[in-house]
Amino acid sequence: MLDYEKAFQTAVSAVKSEGRYRVFADLERISGRFPQARYHDGNSDPKEVTVWCSNDYLGMGQHPDVAQAMKTAIDQVGVGAGGTRNIAGTTHYHVRLEKELADLHNKEAALLFTSGYVGNEATLSTLGKLLPDCITLSDELNHASMIHGIRGGKGPKLIWRHNDLVHLESLLKDLPADKPKVIAFESVYSMDGDIAPIGRICDLADKYNAFTYLDEVHGVGLYGEKGGGVAQRDGVEHRVDVIEGTLGKAFGVMGGYIAGSSALIDAVRSYASSFIFTTALSPVLVAGALESVRTLKKSEDLRARHQERAARMKEVLSNAGFPVMPSVSHIVPVFVGDPVACKAVSDRLLTDHSMYVQPINYPTVPRGTERLRFTPTPLHTDAHIEQLVEALDVVWTDLQLKRAAA
Amino acid sequence: MLDYEKAFQTAVSAVKSEGRYRVFADLERISGRFPQARYHDGNSDPKEVTVWCSNDYLGMGQHPDVAQAMKTAIDQVGVGAGGTRNIAGTTHYHVRLEKELADLHNKEAALLFTSGYVGNEATLSTLGKLLPDCITLSDELNHASMIHGIRGGKGPKLIWRHNDLVHLESLLKDLPADKPKVIAFESVYSMDGDIAPIGRICDLADKYNAFTYLDEVHGVGLYGEKGGGVAQRDGVEHRVDVIEGTLGKAFGVMGGYIAGSSALIDAVRSYASSFIFTTALSPVLVAGALESVRTLKKSEDLRARHQERAARMKEVLSNAGFPVMPSVSHIVPVFVGDPVACKAVSDRLLTDHSMYVQPINYPTVPRGTERLRFTPTPLHTDAHIEQLVEALDVVWTDLQLKRAAA
Repeated sequence: MLDYEKAFQTAVSAVKSEGRYRVFADLERISGRFPQARYHDGNSDPKEVTVWCSNDYLGMGQHPDVAQAMKTAIDQVGVGAGGTRNIAGTTHYHVRLEKELADLHNKEAALLFTSGYVGNEATLSTLGKLLPDCITLSDELNHASMIHGIRGGKGPKLIWRHNDLVHLESLLKDLPADKPKVIAFESVYSMDGDIAPIGRICDLADKYNAFTYLDEVHGVGLYGEKGGGVAQRDGVEHRVDVIEGTLGKAFGVMGGYIAGSSALIDAVRSYASSFIFTTALSPVLVAGALESVRTLKKSEDLRARHQERAARMKEVLSNAGFPVMPSVSHIVPVFVGDPVACKAVSDRLLTDHSMYVQPINYPTVPRGTERLRFTPTPLHTDAHIEQLVEALDVVWTDLQLKRAAA
Repeated sequence: MLDYEKAFQTAVSAVKSEGRYRVFADLERISGRFPQARYHDGNSDPKEVTVWCSNDYLGMGQHPDVAQAMKTAIDQVGVGAGGTRNIAGTTHYHVRLEKELADLHNKEAALLFTSGYVGNEATLSTLGKLLPDCITLSDELNHASMIHGIRGGKGPKLIWRHNDLVHLESLLKDLPADKPKVIAFESVYSMDGDIAPIGRICDLADKYNAFTYLDEVHGVGLYGEKGGGVAQRDGVEHRVDVIEGTLGKAFGVMGGYIAGSSALIDAVRSYASSFIFTTALSPVLVAGALESVRTLKKSEDLRARHQERAARMKEVLSNAGFPVMPSVSHIVPVFVGDPVACKAVSDRLLTDHSMYVQPINYPTVPRGTERLRFTPTPLHTDAHIEQLVEALDVVWTDLQLKRAAA
């Protein structure tokens, strides 16, 4: 007789035996004192820690104007949407935010989703269904949500080596000219911190008449003159057909979106199951995101400070001999290379040094490339960075981890 | 040369030609005066309308304690989670709400998702992957999100006729005894308002050693002594393996969840892509939902009033000769049977009578069964109901629609 419970236990044991079982840190951020948070270990009283791995990259999650916009929405329209976008769930906030996001990326239209994950899944699967015999060309390091969406589209998928233009072109030139082709990629790859050659990918798209889909979730708010992302910074956003973004990282709130042509947006709006059949984003979140997007449109200083912090941290860590992985963005990955050691470093930092950075293990990154991933924000001071380096020095020595070559 | 824009336009034209193109009503709910809202038509000043189709079934979206809990969370921890559950996104609110939801359903554990859609998609696809050679038996009227999840599981799917126990058993008895089988169904089918024979489905599950997955999104908060849903009302929730629910309908906020055994929850938590790789629910939503769940646990009166309103409305509409479809729940569907007529009734009610109920057309319901779907809440008064019947009478006559047999 089949034992379902045992099947689930076996599945979890497999994860544990690889040393990649996830224990979620129970944190309570302290609004107004970011990056500080209270850590609950389930036993003793909570203790204060410094968070080093938040995707709230600019601390907008505690911005007073964003907070106030959300409180106003609660007072005016209530706490939820009350239905799908079609079933009484479209509020005036949704309409305004979609206009604002279209403007952010200089596109005709935009569409909100409950998350960036759903935005990728819904849009890529719908492209695969609406474009007959569509072939998707996917960067090998694309996010799980993009892979999920491409699979849902049912069409053939070709994987190109990460950021490798030669390989991408070799695939494109063998494809039939009259078939639709979608090139799907990210701007900032968030676990490595490298950045795609967006303009040159668009050159190939032009040459082979391919459609371009760009995930900018780690770029929006952070790059470009109004925070439209890396494509905006590089002056090529008009060449990208779909830009996908999130409201849950630099914008500090929650939710996802795409921006593109009116026809594309209307098609996804009309066909994507995970858009149509889901309760709309709470107007509270939408009101907050609207304020956040507007604020960051004019926050060049904050963006500059963010880049300066990341550069400073890479320099300090490298000088101290830690194996900082090459990164041309705001992400600061430090190589460990083993899931158990990676978890051990994280645990030591939390327990002994009151600093929180979670281990990044498989399946988030390939096995053997386990790492810590630091995300310094404009609110991480020089003192924070110095304290971290001192703590890492102790832990690295205790655990006998490898330093970078001098 | 392939024209992508044209492909999208063609896809949208196909929807339009069937009369089922969706136009989202731009509504601004008025907190404190539910079910009233302001309708923006994009041209003239907004006008006040009565909303008749919200899934905020009890008006919890404007509950003062829920609103206050969310404002407190904004002040204390900020507006977003800042990362996935694993990457600094688990707040103390998440931990507490998951405990509360496990208790609501008398289960060992619970897990939050960004939406009910994602809860179904993530859990059903993960079950399909973790249980080797799993066969899913799916009620033919299951929600799009369940179908999406079952497909993602890759295993074989058998569809049983809606709520048909004889058909379900005929399928079960032909399956190999040693293979895992998941019976996936809903409690309240929200477009028809009928209710599954949960206990008798569990009898079959026992007989054939199948695993039961129950979507209670239209039941939680509304049925059962503490609002645990129809399975709780029927005294059979301990026999259901997974209960899936939403925080965005009766609880008035946003988000989804599952409740079940600790082993099941841990397995889904550890394997489901759309759970792992997505920014966690904003703690603001989680704080609101926590308050809402706690409030509705002790709100038997509100649940009774809700049922009384639905019964009253069915009676009044039937007496007036409208084709109310059979419903044993709080849903009041009225048959139209044509997408263009269905949209026309909705448009007339909005334009001429300041009442909002959206048309329900394909693919939400099968073609030929288009309908209006009313959801009277405890806040819809006798006067509201009378006004609606008067308005429907005018529209039904003008459009020469069919009345029920006397």
